[in-house]
Amino acid sequence: AIVQAVAARFGAGPLAGKRVLLTAGPTREFLDPVRFISNPSTGKMGMALAHAARTLGAEVTVVLGPVGTVERGGLDIVDVVSADDMAREVLSRVGTVDVFIATAAVSDWRPETRAPQKVKKGASTSPEALTLVRTPDVLAEASRQVAGQPKRPVLVGFAAETERVVAHARDKLERKGLDAIVANDVTAPGAGFGTDTNRVTVLTRSGAQHELQGSKREVAQALIELLLVSPS
Amino acid sequence: AIVQAVAARFGAGPLAGKRVLLTAGPTREFLDPVRFISNPSTGKMGMALAHAARTLGAEVTVVLGPVGTVERGGLDIVDVVSADDMAREVLSRVGTVDVFIATAAVSDWRPETRAPQKVKKGASTSPEALTLVRTPDVLAEASRQVAGQPKRPVLVGFAAETERVVAHARDKLERKGLDAIVANDVTAPGAGFGTDTNRVTVLTRSGAQHELQGSKREVAQALIELLLVSPS
Repeated sequence: AIVQAVAARFGAGPLAGKRVLLTAGPTREFLDPVRFISNPSTGKMGMALAHAARTLGAEVTVVLGPVGTVERGGLDIVDVVSADDMAREVLSRVGTVDVFIATAAVSDWRPETRAPQKVKKGASTSPEALTLVRTPDVLAEASRQVAGQPKRPVLVGFAAETERVVAHARDKLERKGLDAIVANDVTAPGAGFGTDTNRVTVLTRSGAQHELQGSKREVAQALIELLLVSPS
Repeated sequence: AIVQAVAARFGAGPLAGKRVLLTAGPTREFLDPVRFISNPSTGKMGMALAHAARTLGAEVTVVLGPVGTVERGGLDIVDVVSADDMAREVLSRVGTVDVFIATAAVSDWRPETRAPQKVKKGASTSPEALTLVRTPDVLAEASRQVAGQPKRPVLVGFAAETERVVAHARDKLERKGLDAIVANDVTAPGAGFGTDTNRVTVLTRSGAQHELQGSKREVAQALIELLLVSPS
């Protein structure tokens, strides 16, 4: 690890000269100044991947949704809140990188309007309808944007699923034109949101399938090795 | 501080023998296994109050919504997720305490139904309606429950507002039958959600009004002193 850290510092290592763009964490879609729709992502898996790529010599930018305190050293971090913010920051960068890894749990819907002041509860206790509209699909839009480029970045997606995990992930890989997708069952014990461990299935465009498990750090190192250092 | 810590350990201090119940953090109201409605509360102010009361000798129970890593030493912590969970844990305890301080940012609405599996986006991009219903008002229900008790606990509320802060807080104090309410403008710089500092206005049933500001720890100590040690 010391050798790799030194290598990273001097721009050496197997990923030296590579530019990696990552998204991590959740997004928040506010309906007024204090209420939002979100998900339990803590950004741990994405940050572990970012540090693993950095340690192997890559230049890493993370477009990061709202998370608690994370280790930021050695990374270029762009903080964002909403899916719209994340899409804008990704689309302005993805054309110039070698690899784009989309780990963020982007909200798929946002409230159609955002009230300028906190909505008071009022006396009525009858049900209310909140109108939701779709957010941009950051990974699909990035994929479309780079599709015609002479040197297209490697595109890696993540799929957090609760059922039919591999089938949903394979479908997402094809639909979004990805090189690989990392799928996990977020309802499985020791996997998914907020845990320190993970168990994932990696599917590649060529049809290969790999299973990885361990601490998020171990899984991150294995993923970077598998996808970027010695891709099959 | 050392003297106070020692005092707390041996059950001494101005709040020795007092039982304090607190709520802290946000709640999460899930619409499927991975998506929820919530707010940016980090539980910092509530946890600072809990530790301040403990340091002065109180026995402190915190009903805590989902937050990151917090200092749990010396406190009895009950972890919860939703407003329904929080209401249940509070209502089973509030009848036997001396003080109830409701700092949690409880979601006012929850999705009417919770899908058993992650809702897939599907092909349609047209707006969708999410039906919301009201959650229990934890503080109001606690207040009603103890209203007839011979020795009613001191009830302290918090009001996170974005406009007409004092008026909204005064209304809440009266409507919920509180002894005091701590109001802050969560849109003001250096106050409210996720910050390390706070600036609050304390209103009491007797009509007194106090302004406090500083780090959340300093504000917490001043609040405990003002409300519990030497109430005016």
